[in-house]
Amino acid sequence: MRQRNVKNKAEIINNSKYIIKEPEKLKGNWRNVFENDNPLYIEIGMGKGDFIRENALKYPNINFIGIEKFDSIIALAIKKLDIDIPNLKLIRMDALNIENVFEKEVDKLFLNFSDPWPKPRHEKRRLTSSEFLMRYENIFKEKKIIEMKTDNRELFEYSLFSFNKNDYKIEDISLDLHHSDYPDNIMTEYERKFTSKGNVIYYVKVVK
Amino acid sequence: MRQRNVKNKAEIINNSKYIIKEPEKLKGNWRNVFENDNPLYIEIGMGKGDFIRENALKYPNINFIGIEKFDSIIALAIKKLDIDIPNLKLIRMDALNIENVFEKEVDKLFLNFSDPWPKPRHEKRRLTSSEFLMRYENIFKEKKIIEMKTDNRELFEYSLFSFNKNDYKIEDISLDLHHSDYPDNIMTEYERKFTSKGNVIYYVKVVK
Repeated sequence: MRQRNVKNKAEIINNSKYIIKEPEKLKGNWRNVFENDNPLYIEIGMGKGDFIRENALKYPNINFIGIEKFDSIIALAIKKLDIDIPNLKLIRMDALNIENVFEKEVDKLFLNFSDPWPKPRHEKRRLTSSEFLMRYENIFKEKKIIEMKTDNRELFEYSLFSFNKNDYKIEDISLDLHHSDYPDNIMTEYERKFTSKGNVIYYVKVVK
Repeated sequence: MRQRNVKNKAEIINNSKYIIKEPEKLKGNWRNVFENDNPLYIEIGMGKGDFIRENALKYPNINFIGIEKFDSIIALAIKKLDIDIPNLKLIRMDALNIENVFEKEVDKLFLNFSDPWPKPRHEKRRLTSSEFLMRYENIFKEKKIIEMKTDNRELFEYSLFSFNKNDYKIEDISLDLHHSDYPDNIMTEYERKFTSKGNVIYYVKVVK
């Protein structure tokens, strides 16, 4: 996501009750944070958090964690959280460290409008590369479920190829989400913007 | 394909040297027809045959067989074959019988702009259904290679799902073939028409 500097971002992040500061210490014990045994869904690269926030409000019996790398962006997400949502937490971290934060406890992973890293030499940075899929292997409780949305055709083609290569099975797919029958789709900020421009949104749910 | 009645179609088919009349008798022995050991590529639902004809002309060291169910359509394909192409043959048959015609001898199968059969109760008729993929199992020599093109989004989504379910791996994919880098793409009649209308053409190559 293109970044705009946010004033007082460190203060906003430090003072937010949504932010988990040393997430590595909770590895394997995230149920204690939420004080229940509900399923845990995480989103890597949550941006300003519209998607994860709306999900948390809509599904109070599921725990949600939004992960975002950039201070300025997560600060913007926090600013939008003016009401109390007990089943939502946020982590400011690089997804490269995901294995140090979760262990056999995630039920679903969302990847929305991830950075496409179009250059072949940056392939490993794509969140659906074999390298990242390997990092996710051990974070899932049992069944591995990944839901992905993007308007980037090349990233989507690559991701289908990569999921397939890594033995994920397609459970659901749409090559034009907004002209398909998905009444429960919750939009991200990006999705709203891109859809209003007429861009096609691709969606896939894979399971392993 | 929408059919227009072709006058003298029976005569055209009977008199064509391209047509193989009792293909079941050649099961397992198609190399004898071509009198060489070159690879064998087949297209199910070849329509008026532009794709298979151009392929045969471009790749003289590969044998091609075009399969079409309807008399009127195959008659139109024959009418376009005014020059001698020794590495091309045609069969008028229903793909339901494919197992009776080929056995461990096909190297690649092309499915171009197949009938989408959109109603769920007609799923089994789609040429990429599990039922059809099972019928293809034994026609391939070793590696099973299927290349598919369509402008029908629902059929393409379904086919990705079905290939994946039946353990085919994606080797190549484009969600907008005519805006991708495929310089060697040979167009079908349909493709030419649909592309000129601005339709997106989907393409996938899968291997098992």
